[in-house]
Amino acid sequence: MKLVPLGDRVVIKQLIAEETTKSGIVLPGQTKEKPQQAEVVAVGPGGVVDGKEITMQVKAGDKVIYSKYAGTEVKIEEEEFIIVKQSDILAVIE
Amino acid sequence: MKLVPLGDRVVIKQLIAEETTKSGIVLPGQTKEKPQQAEVVAVGPGGVVDGKEITMQVKAGDKVIYSKYAGTEVKIEEEEFIIVKQSDILAVIE
Amino acid sequence: MKLVPLGDRVVIKQLIAEETTKSGIVLPGQTKEKPQQAEVVAVGPGGVVDGKEITMQVKAGDKVIYSKYAGTEVKIEEEEFIIVKQSDILAVIE
Amino acid sequence: MKLVPLGDRVVIKQLIAEETTKSGIVLPGQTKEKPQQAEVVAVGPGGVVDGKEITMQVKAGDKVIYSKYAGTEVKIEEEEFIIVKQSDILAVIE
Amino acid sequence: MKLVPLGDRVVIKQLIAEETTKSGIVLPGQTKEKPQQAEVVAVGPGGVVDGKEITMQVKAGDKVIYSKYAGTEVKIEEEEFIIVKQSDILAVIE
Amino acid sequence: MKLVPLGDRVVIKQLIAEETTKSGIVLPGQTKEKPQQAEVVAVGPGGVVDGKEITMQVKAGDKVIYSKYAGTEVKIEEEEFIIVKQSDILAVIE
Amino acid sequence: MKLVPLGDRVVIKQLIAEETTKSGIVLPGQTKEKPQQAEVVAVGPGGVVDGKEITMQVKAGDKVIYSKYAGTEVKIEEEEFIIVKQSDILAVIE
Repeated sequence: MKLVPLGDRVVIKQLIAEETTKSGIVLPGQTKEKPQQAEVVAVGPGGVVDGKEITMQVKAGDKVIYSKYAGTEVKIEEEEFIIVKQSDILAVIE
Repeated sequence: MKLVPLGDRVVIKQLIAEETTKSGIVLPGQTKEKPQQAEVVAVGPGGVVDGKEITMQVKAGDKVIYSKYAGTEVKIEEEEFIIVKQSDILAVIE
Repeated sequence: MKLVPLGDRVVIKQLIAEETTKSGIVLPGQTKEKPQQAEVVAVGPGGVVDGKEITMQVKAGDKVIYSKYAGTEVKIEEEEFIIVKQSDILAVIE
Repeated sequence: MKLVPLGDRVVIKQLIAEETTKSGIVLPGQTKEKPQQAEVVAVGPGGVVDGKEITMQVKAGDKVIYSKYAGTEVKIEEEEFIIVKQSDILAVIE
Repeated sequence: MKLVPLGDRVVIKQLIAEETTKSGIVLPGQTKEKPQQAEVVAVGPGGVVDGKEITMQVKAGDKVIYSKYAGTEVKIEEEEFIIVKQSDILAVIE
Repeated sequence: MKLVPLGDRVVIKQLIAEETTKSGIVLPGQTKEKPQQAEVVAVGPGGVVDGKEITMQVKAGDKVIYSKYAGTEVKIEEEEFIIVKQSDILAVIE
Repeated sequence: MKLVPLGDRVVIKQLIAEETTKSGIVLPGQTKEKPQQAEVVAVGPGGVVDGKEITMQVKAGDKVIYSKYAGTEVKIEEEEFIIVKQSDILAVIE
């Protein structure tokens, strides 16, 4: 089962911060969300959306900053995704 | 009796999740709605809507994610449908 | 006396559901409104409305679903009509 | 003294319903307003209004239905008029 | 000191009704404002305003009806003016 | 240090009214602001702003009336300025 | 790790005012934020954004005044940035 976004929508998944102790040990069980950071899972085809030509500028795998409160949360087979418009993606983290 | 949507409207029907017990037995009587998942029932012709050229990108039978709170609920011969604009459909589930 | 709508307006009249008893007898005195279902009474000429070219897609006699809360109710010679924009008509019932 | 509306404005005057008794006698003293029914008094020239070409479709003398709450009431020499945009006129009564 | 409006702005001055007694004596001291009636004092050059070509249709000296609540009141050398956009002028009084 | 406005922005500085006593003596210590009157300090280059071609029509040194509540107040080296869009400037005072 | 803004977005960093005592000694520990003053860190490519061609007019290193309440605050590796649209940048400080 796979989400195929329409138009200028992008499916993203929030990034989970690995908790690292001062001694450098990674504690994967103690995760917390990195707010507004997400990984792109799927990208719509772009094209004419609401009468405007949209070129998609992100691709699956990109780490991005997205706009707080934007988008629609969906749960597919116990996994949580957020579907946003590309214009709600503010920046790519390189 | 059949709903023929105008312009960029799409008639959808909410999906009902079959409840499956841990042993794998499907209990069709204990259904609950899958929020925001729906099946496309009928698709408008598209064309110029509100001064913008709209091409329809979903078709009857598609399983889709739609935007919460969008659309108008209608009841035709005891069946419930939702009529949304195509732009309220966020993604197709494949 | 007759209403001739301007631009993309459509004059509609709410449909009244005939109450049918289980034995099949129609009780016309016990009517209730079918919410959001209406019959088209008169259709404006379309053309350029608010700077956008509008082609009328419904015709007098069509049974339609219209958007809740849309339109203006008017009473002409004791008959009640609703004047809506065509974009408030969601679907035709065939 | 005469009102000459600008652009797509229309000067209208609310219609007063003559009260007729059951025996057919008209009682002109007992008038009440017909809500939303008005007679067109003067029509602006149309042309480019707010960047859009507007063609005027009503003329002085037309009886019209106008949108509730629309327009500005003005009082000129003890007479009351309403100035509306043509787009607030929903239909002509023929 | 003189106000030169920009773009599609118009400087207007509210009209004061002279109070006339029944015997025909004008009592200039007992003035009251004629609501929404004003005289045009200065007219902007029009041209492209907010991306739209605007042609000015009123001129200094015109008596006009303007939209209630529209415009900005300014006081220059103890005189009060209102600066409105031409689209807030509803009609010229001839 | 100098403010260079972008696009259709204009940097203005509120005018201070000199208090003059009846005998004609100017009391510079007793100043009060002239509401909505300002002097233009710097003018943006104009050009395409928000998809619309903007030509700047005010210049540094102009005394202007600006729209109440418009603009952003900034303090640079203890001096207070207001940055407004040119469309918030209603008129030039000559 | 580096933020690459999309479209007409700009990554900025609020300026910190160095506190200087009257004797001229800089007290870097006693910093306070200069409200609305920021340094540009990274600039999006511009291009067609929301159907409008945008040319970027600021560059990394520019000191700018930005609109209060605009933008989205993000924290990357303990550093705080604000991502704004270029239209939220009011002026460059030279």
